Amino acid sequence: MLFFTQCFGAVLDLIHLRFQHYKAKRVFSAAGQLVCVVNPTHSLKYAPTRCAAAQASTEQGILPPCHHHEAVHDPQLVPCTCPLFSCPWEGHLEVVVSHLRQTHRISILQGAEIVFLATDMHLPAPTDWIIMHSCLGHQFLLVLRKQEKYEGHPQFFATMMLIGTPTQANNFTYRLELNRNQRRLKWEATPRSILECVDSVISDGDCLVLNTSLAQLFSDNGSLAIGIAITTSKVHSSEAEI
Amino acid sequence: MLFFTQCFGAVLDLIHLRFQHYKAKRVFSAAGQLVCVVNPTHSLKYAPTRCAAAQASTEQGILPPCHHHEAVHDPQLVPCTCPLFSCPWEGHLEVVVSHLRQTHRISILQGAEIVFLATDMHLPAPTDWIIMHSCLGHQFLLVLRKQEKYEGHPQFFATMMLIGTPTQANNFTYRLELNRNQRRLKWEATPRSILECVDSVISDGDCLVLNTSLAQLFSDNGSLAIGIAITTSKVHSSEAEI
Repeated sequence: MLFFTQCFGAVLDLIHLRFQHYKAKRVFSAAGQLVCVVNPTHSLKYAPTRCAAAQASTEQGILPPCHHHEAVHDPQLVPCTCPLFSCPWEGHLEVVVSHLRQTHRISILQGAEIVFLATDMHLPAPTDWIIMHSCLGHQFLLVLRKQEKYEGHPQFFATMMLIGTPTQANNFTYRLELNRNQRRLKWEATPRSILECVDSVISDGDCLVLNTSLAQLFSDNGSLAIGIAITTSKVHSSEAEI
Repeated sequence: MLFFTQCFGAVLDLIHLRFQHYKAKRVFSAAGQLVCVVNPTHSLKYAPTRCAAAQASTEQGILPPCHHHEAVHDPQLVPCTCPLFSCPWEGHLEVVVSHLRQTHRISILQGAEIVFLATDMHLPAPTDWIIMHSCLGHQFLLVLRKQEKYEGHPQFFATMMLIGTPTQANNFTYRLELNRNQRRLKWEATPRSILECVDSVISDGDCLVLNTSLAQLFSDNGSLAIGIAITTSKVHSSEAEI
């Protein structure tokens, strides 16, 4: 009986995903871009899996958990930058992508321009939508966060981080674009390095910020489609800071 | 002695304006756009001039003040849409521009693309920066407002209204662009008609919204430069709402 219930649940999930994907394709059909459906993650939801994260990192033989609190610290080690919860993992920059994929199950997409379709925007804050984007020989982490900076007034914050050093990050420009209901909002900036904290980028508000009413205007049936493009940096033509 | 003090004050004002204009030209020199320095207006500051507004409207022979509270109301008459204060004037849509220029001293600029340079962004909320923009045979009102939607957290709201009917407004698209410090933020939308209330557009958040930290990132010495462009409407190519 339990087996049949589980099967039925899985079939329902598949139908739901198929429906979300169909919606995204409908909205962005003209652009011909790759659409990725991203489901929300409530931060607290993953708290019990910390042990799994710690276990996985130990299995990878990088460093056992909690070693980063000790006096002798290897400066080449990077703590886990997954913003979902406080993960005790740390390791070299080169293995951050595999850690995020394996332990945090974050999807990775290829392509110069993709569409990030965040579902269930109505869920209460704090909620995160996260994906990795592989482009121009590097991997980027896109984080969309619903958060209440002012109590009772949730806002949406979107930013892109390079899984690399700040010097490498300076070579790129990322663009996030919302386009619906005869309105268009574009944010272009240099990605921050994943060595900086995503929480501080968001609390500083140095990212794309949407209030709830604007997010609703850009949403379609509770899903928000964000067009993402990454290019190599060039000086903005109309910006002449002498 | 009073005469010399006033002269000295006027010379200081001219030097200040010249300096602001030089700053704007420096920032936007590459774009070769017309830069307009817009000084802030604190809403309460103008309250004592209501009489002047009423007097001016009577002089224009349109309608004496307070007549719009009477039972017989001409539907072709438009109340004053200047968001600075509650002005008792009302008149036909065709004379709104001359009312705004003469009574509220709002400047009008010509050109397809202009730069709106709002000075003294640090002033406390509520503060407005207002200008009229003449383009494509129509006049538009640009309003930048600093307002505290959440107590202690001022935000900036920018929108453009057509001095015309909603049907006429649907024929245009306006773009507001901020560009500084390797960040670019663009907002594109159909202008609202001035027959709709600018206060409700701002309270709905259906406009360009900036939090204080983002406004600081885009500011240069307390002045915020907003590039403005108006075009005739076309369906956004990447927006396919079937």
